[in-house]
Amino acid sequence: MNIISLKSPGLAHLSYLVSSKQEAAVIDPRRDVLEYVRICKDRGLNLKYVLETHRNEDYVSGALELADALGAEVYHGEQLDFAYGNPLSDGQVLKLGNLKIKALHTPGHTIESFCYLVEEKKGPVALFTGDSLFVGEVGRTDLSGEGVWKELSEKLFHSIQEKILPLGDSVMIFPGHGAGSVCGHAIAEREISTIGLEKRDNPLLRLVKEDFVQHKITEKMDRAAYFRVMEEMNLNGPPSMPSFPGIKRISSQELIKHQQQGALVLDARYPQSFAAAHIPGALNIMKDGIASYGGFVIAPGSRMVLVTVDAREAEEAAIFLMRMGFDDVLGHLNNGMESWIKEGRPLQSLGLLSPKELNDMIEAGEPPLIIDVRDEQERSEGIISGAVAVSLESILSGNAAIDGEREAVYYCASGYRGSTAASIMKARGHLRSTVLLGGIGAWIKAGFPILQSDEI
Amino acid sequence: MNIISLKSPGLAHLSYLVSSKQEAAVIDPRRDVLEYVRICKDRGLNLKYVLETHRNEDYVSGALELADALGAEVYHGEQLDFAYGNPLSDGQVLKLGNLKIKALHTPGHTIESFCYLVEEKKGPVALFTGDSLFVGEVGRTDLSGEGVWKELSEKLFHSIQEKILPLGDSVMIFPGHGAGSVCGHAIAEREISTIGLEKRDNPLLRLVKEDFVQHKITEKMDRAAYFRVMEEMNLNGPPSMPSFPGIKRISSQELIKHQQQGALVLDARYPQSFAAAHIPGALNIMKDGIASYGGFVIAPGSRMVLVTVDAREAEEAAIFLMRMGFDDVLGHLNNGMESWIKEGRPLQSLGLLSPKELNDMIEAGEPPLIIDVRDEQERSEGIISGAVAVSLESILSGNAAIDGEREAVYYCASGYRGSTAASIMKARGHLRSTVLLGGIGAWIKAGFPILQSDEI
Amino acid sequence: MNIISLKSPGLAHLSYLVSSKQEAAVIDPRRDVLEYVRICKDRGLNLKYVLETHRNEDYVSGALELADALGAEVYHGEQLDFAYGNPLSDGQVLKLGNLKIKALHTPGHTIESFCYLVEEKKGPVALFTGDSLFVGEVGRTDLSGEGVWKELSEKLFHSIQEKILPLGDSVMIFPGHGAGSVCGHAIAEREISTIGLEKRDNPLLRLVKEDFVQHKITEKMDRAAYFRVMEEMNLNGPPSMPSFPGIKRISSQELIKHQQQGALVLDARYPQSFAAAHIPGALNIMKDGIASYGGFVIAPGSRMVLVTVDAREAEEAAIFLMRMGFDDVLGHLNNGMESWIKEGRPLQSLGLLSPKELNDMIEAGEPPLIIDVRDEQERSEGIISGAVAVSLESILSGNAAIDGEREAVYYCASGYRGSTAASIMKARGHLRSTVLLGGIGAWIKAGFPILQSDEI
Amino acid sequence: MNIISLKSPGLAHLSYLVSSKQEAAVIDPRRDVLEYVRICKDRGLNLKYVLETHRNEDYVSGALELADALGAEVYHGEQLDFAYGNPLSDGQVLKLGNLKIKALHTPGHTIESFCYLVEEKKGPVALFTGDSLFVGEVGRTDLSGEGVWKELSEKLFHSIQEKILPLGDSVMIFPGHGAGSVCGHAIAEREISTIGLEKRDNPLLRLVKEDFVQHKITEKMDRAAYFRVMEEMNLNGPPSMPSFPGIKRISSQELIKHQQQGALVLDARYPQSFAAAHIPGALNIMKDGIASYGGFVIAPGSRMVLVTVDAREAEEAAIFLMRMGFDDVLGHLNNGMESWIKEGRPLQSLGLLSPKELNDMIEAGEPPLIIDVRDEQERSEGIISGAVAVSLESILSGNAAIDGEREAVYYCASGYRGSTAASIMKARGHLRSTVLLGGIGAWIKAGFPILQSDEI
Repeated sequence: MNIISLKSPGLAHLSYLVSSKQEAAVIDPRRDVLEYVRICKDRGLNLKYVLETHRNEDYVSGALELADALGAEVYHGEQLDFAYGNPLSDGQVLKLGNLKIKALHTPGHTIESFCYLVEEKKGPVALFTGDSLFVGEVGRTDLSGEGVWKELSEKLFHSIQEKILPLGDSVMIFPGHGAGSVCGHAIAEREISTIGLEKRDNPLLRLVKEDFVQHKITEKMDRAAYFRVMEEMNLNGPPSMPSFPGIKRISSQELIKHQQQGALVLDARYPQSFAAAHIPGALNIMKDGIASYGGFVIAPGSRMVLVTVDAREAEEAAIFLMRMGFDDVLGHLNNGMESWIKEGRPLQSLGLLSPKELNDMIEAGEPPLIIDVRDEQERSEGIISGAVAVSLESILSGNAAIDGEREAVYYCASGYRGSTAASIMKARGHLRSTVLLGGIGAWIKAGFPILQSDEI
Repeated sequence: MNIISLKSPGLAHLSYLVSSKQEAAVIDPRRDVLEYVRICKDRGLNLKYVLETHRNEDYVSGALELADALGAEVYHGEQLDFAYGNPLSDGQVLKLGNLKIKALHTPGHTIESFCYLVEEKKGPVALFTGDSLFVGEVGRTDLSGEGVWKELSEKLFHSIQEKILPLGDSVMIFPGHGAGSVCGHAIAEREISTIGLEKRDNPLLRLVKEDFVQHKITEKMDRAAYFRVMEEMNLNGPPSMPSFPGIKRISSQELIKHQQQGALVLDARYPQSFAAAHIPGALNIMKDGIASYGGFVIAPGSRMVLVTVDAREAEEAAIFLMRMGFDDVLGHLNNGMESWIKEGRPLQSLGLLSPKELNDMIEAGEPPLIIDVRDEQERSEGIISGAVAVSLESILSGNAAIDGEREAVYYCASGYRGSTAASIMKARGHLRSTVLLGGIGAWIKAGFPILQSDEI
Repeated sequence: MNIISLKSPGLAHLSYLVSSKQEAAVIDPRRDVLEYVRICKDRGLNLKYVLETHRNEDYVSGALELADALGAEVYHGEQLDFAYGNPLSDGQVLKLGNLKIKALHTPGHTIESFCYLVEEKKGPVALFTGDSLFVGEVGRTDLSGEGVWKELSEKLFHSIQEKILPLGDSVMIFPGHGAGSVCGHAIAEREISTIGLEKRDNPLLRLVKEDFVQHKITEKMDRAAYFRVMEEMNLNGPPSMPSFPGIKRISSQELIKHQQQGALVLDARYPQSFAAAHIPGALNIMKDGIASYGGFVIAPGSRMVLVTVDAREAEEAAIFLMRMGFDDVLGHLNNGMESWIKEGRPLQSLGLLSPKELNDMIEAGEPPLIIDVRDEQERSEGIISGAVAVSLESILSGNAAIDGEREAVYYCASGYRGSTAASIMKARGHLRSTVLLGGIGAWIKAGFPILQSDEI
Repeated sequence: MNIISLKSPGLAHLSYLVSSKQEAAVIDPRRDVLEYVRICKDRGLNLKYVLETHRNEDYVSGALELADALGAEVYHGEQLDFAYGNPLSDGQVLKLGNLKIKALHTPGHTIESFCYLVEEKKGPVALFTGDSLFVGEVGRTDLSGEGVWKELSEKLFHSIQEKILPLGDSVMIFPGHGAGSVCGHAIAEREISTIGLEKRDNPLLRLVKEDFVQHKITEKMDRAAYFRVMEEMNLNGPPSMPSFPGIKRISSQELIKHQQQGALVLDARYPQSFAAAHIPGALNIMKDGIASYGGFVIAPGSRMVLVTVDAREAEEAAIFLMRMGFDDVLGHLNNGMESWIKEGRPLQSLGLLSPKELNDMIEAGEPPLIIDVRDEQERSEGIISGAVAVSLESILSGNAAIDGEREAVYYCASGYRGSTAASIMKARGHLRSTVLLGGIGAWIKAGFPILQSDEI
């Protein structure tokens, strides 16, 4: 048996290629499947199965495209009516080389969630846990809606305690996400584990049922708008990947035309670069933040043009977007923001404050409006004195009551979402929108005081 | 914590790069260290330690070169007096990002063998076992000589039972070799395990001490001549890698000159290609067999010229040789064997028999000499009726009494060593040296009978 | 202006990417267009035009696929009614960045042949000559049939003398093929030239019209069966490239099944490897010979399975085939010929003779049948005494009268076509088919005599 | 004959690999020679010669290292006493495969300059012109000092008119630099030419001797401080390349320590990113500008730490520096400027003005100090009204008289050198140093007026 792990950065999504005797199966492939194909080629593997642990909601599945490309069979849980692939029932066994892969129905994260147990002749050795069990965390149970939240939380408890943990301490665990995923708040840095290690280290596995369920149904995690779109796609068969996403270069004139026709100008540079000079009306989502919160800020179906430092970054941004189903990237500004600047075109800027500058203003008794755009859980660890909490959603929807005449400094944990918020408000006409460089993280490291939540 | 595994094919050697918070350690690096350097670069890791589990004997260590390149510290067991690096004592702890790496003295394979235990805040999670414990096997104890064979076997028993297994079923295991290594006979295909899985599946872990020691001191594994050379190098600090090994192309004339001056002509093509046409006097070791039995057949310090199909294969062969300390590769025949043929130069051939052809001869009552060059353990599973066992060593040393006038067909498991033996005898003047295509493996699959060892 | 040349080995086909101010044009793209796409991406070029010098006959054009992928326009001569792209008239000018590209109608090779002249502000600098003018050669005029052979030869004379040469000695020339192409016999090794150099060095440019035409209409170049298929495809719009050509691995059992159902077993290994052991019934075309004479030997539309040394070579072979429109490659034998041998399956072999062995037989007065499979022009430089000329075509069609009971040794220039011929005859039941290692080239270099053609 | 061109961006340096019959020569290799090695390997070429056209002054030569790596011979002009390699005399011929390479002494750029003429059997075909003749330009004659400026200019005239041009219009030309090099002001975009095209298009080739010499000795090109260092190195044998330049990552603390000990903090980001937030005291040279004007601004022998967006850019910057002999790069800030910001460390910023903002200030009658840092030749095409010319050199040396209390806006052609200048003055305590975004290029494109030089 051999297992190769492939990670999609940003999404922190983990997919796997397991093989034996030149037969292979892929678990939860991402949308751009070339890397799985390449591995099969290089290692001489015939892909036999594509196994989905559940209908994924945070990315477009590559299962259909990969199976078509290499002549494999797709499998997923029978509890949902997928428009493609084969239904799996609990306990069903697939043969792969010398191995048996046993499908275990483990509802909880979703109703049709499965884990895949790899068995050698002498017994089970590895479990692909999908979004049921992570290293140090368990899967979310809120995504199917409030109506079944409690019920799914109870099912997850039973799936873990009665199906997964009894497999034995020695069995290795390969989860569907690593740290940084929107699918779990406290996922550990390590991406591989064993059942025994989880029993020892994962605090949620030691809760009794009532406490476990209570913990789950009081979790406060945001749910991105695009999740629903992914779910639809992954149920009905996702569209095949666009060829060469992100490759089209457009001139400044074309960008302006697209913007006039309603396209979103998405500037994926660092906040300080964006703040210094950007195209009027642009939205700033730093490239590395696209996968984790782009889906909250960009409306499904949006037409977009990208502005980056260079073409390589535009392509990366386009791939991140494409993995989340945002296929309408019309192109990226040729030669990046530099060409716009060199052409002498209109520029807009945001204010920037270093922690020291903001603190000086506060100490001088002339603070700006200070706006904290983090979520409730993050704020519970402390805020800057005087800060007002305003969610990205309310900023986006225009419901936030912010005085447009005053300087308003936006902050989040590290500065990215703060810049996103400021870019939205600037585009709305709040000319004195300002970003706190490095967010509250830099503020704290610079030695300035925070207010603990219980002090508020 | 993140662990990346790098495998050197042929040697089936596994080295690891473990990292946390952008600090990294490499366990048992191979001689060509560029890949570790590349990973550190790509992932932004600062290499802090190079950890040796023991003085390796089957390859030249890259520890010194890697540590020098990236400014890291080398560590190895204090029980040997290494000329470089830092001595480790049992229980010593090294910090790596958020991790502690605890060095456990586990003598047995050698007197200075160590395992490295990775501990997170909540407890131990992974063990790098070097050549102490493999998946399904344990390390050899015969390499330090007959005098301490029994003693080391006992020590290995204690190291495993008292130091490794008590770490707990849940701890993951990363061994120093995979299947196919000369360092263990029964290593499993899977390259990762847990202590619990080994307790369940590894038959040697269930033996009582007497049986374990008895098993170890009756093992019959060959010991290659070059092992002693590797040990010396790895103790005293291996020479740095030759730049661009294998790159030099030489003409037919140069090859002839080198051969006249005593250089070995090593033909690394498949047996059937070699048999069809080769340079008179050439030794055939199929490229993929170099790492596993080249060290048995090539004298340490040999000067060599390579003959392959193309330059890519010559480079692979040169890298395999270089990893084993054979640095005197003078070049490879430019454009491979094709150029020799196209130049109309003298050619030699070996006889080839398919299983059917050999069987026809036997059935006709006119069998050739049939010579089995496998080792004792392999022969115990059955031989071709009438075959005589002759070891590669005795063929090489010229001690084998084989009638040079009769056709002699050489076989091994799959045909490679058979061709090596036939090529040696042909060069010695046995003109009717012949190879059984596919060895006894093909013979059996073709449906022809074998004699079980107990029938002999 | 920047020009990048891309060569397809085997076909010796040269395509070009010319660019200025980030606009690009590709001249005569091959079917697998990924490399052009990659260059455009890496260099930030927008592809504006795909320019065809003529309806190519020796490979499938990638013009349509490339233009679709990157949003470019295809252009070709108006004299043929292409089902896609835009018609060009003589003298038409296209703008590309700072450049003008002037289309020059240069009939001769075909009726709709064009050259493309690149002009900077100060005048013309480079000419893409397609198959009109090569370095040291001119294009073939026989491909459109006997009826127009003479007429096209005359047109070619006029195109070169009146349209190309007057552009001036200083203008650089970028032709459509290099040495080794089936599109010209005497193409030089150098792949770039100037009009002045061609006037000085190209012997055909110094002929008067009568001699030029006479030379052209007495040329004896073979015309491959697949040319007609390519022409049809390239006129009507070639099918898009198969995804991952050559990737499918098949087992021995599957190979046998395909062979029973009429698929061709194409063994792409070296002649000596093939001769030593091959699958009964297999056809041997050495991989590097596929592009140059595979199209003469393989019937258009053939279903094939490949046998090679390894997967990498299978893929290369499949790409060579795919470029020529052979898309029905059903797969390649997994792990190559080795797996067949190791499974103990039936094997066939060919006889092999080194030049010395053949000469010994001749000197002993017991020569085998000696068969020369080269074309008329090659034979004019000398043959082995006693050899009979038999064309590959007549061998293929079964029209060659060869005594199946006698040993017959086949030779060509270097051994590849000899082995192809022997493999065909062996499959037809001529059991004593034999190959001369290294062909007549090796024979001559080994110092054995040849008969000059005028001695015959 | 085959010629491969390798370009080093930034330096716009062109080196060549010419080959015939698997023998190769490299002309003017850059310091990092791996790419030449790789090509030789991939194509099966044996490197026979490394040919230097002259003692290069704008980069460290890789001749010695490359020749050592592959066993080739170095050649350069006998007029200088090189400490390595072989002296060449005028007319000397070297054989390479089927080719002759004839060394032509062409003094002018330097006293020991050579061109290399490639001759086939039928005559000369290509000339490697080094820094004697470029496409559209000729080499500089000022680098050997005022004393011989005129004499070398005369020699260059004779070398071109009497040695190069007579070779004939048809001969192809491969020069040592392309557009953007500091070795020639008006080099064309096209990188390949013919003698005939140069005679037609290169204005300097039509001047009579007096005018040519007059033109040369009135050229005003800056001479970087590091040129003298390169010359010494290239004469005496350059030190071998540092392994893995730029790989070392350093923490913020380490950077601070290095800065305190006198190391230069070189920030290689875009001007606007630098302006928004940078480390106090840092010098801004945008990465792509390092090769062209870094040598003017960085003192030879400087110890440096780099600040970039990411590790990839740091490596590129380090390679640019290493090619110019700046080997003392101590490391780059781990995770780039982001980590500094997120750690809440002290930040500095520069003012930024868009063309419109500057024009508004001018129109309002309250212009800042406007400082033009371009060279004399650039300024002759027009300046912003009110601008004062101050050279980078005088800014660097502290000789520029600029009022430190007033806002001073620095501009160059596109903004990079302007930012370099502003960063120097900011570090000197001029707190109101400001950069014009996009330089005068953006200013003009935005439609604002310039003053022609004759109006000044």
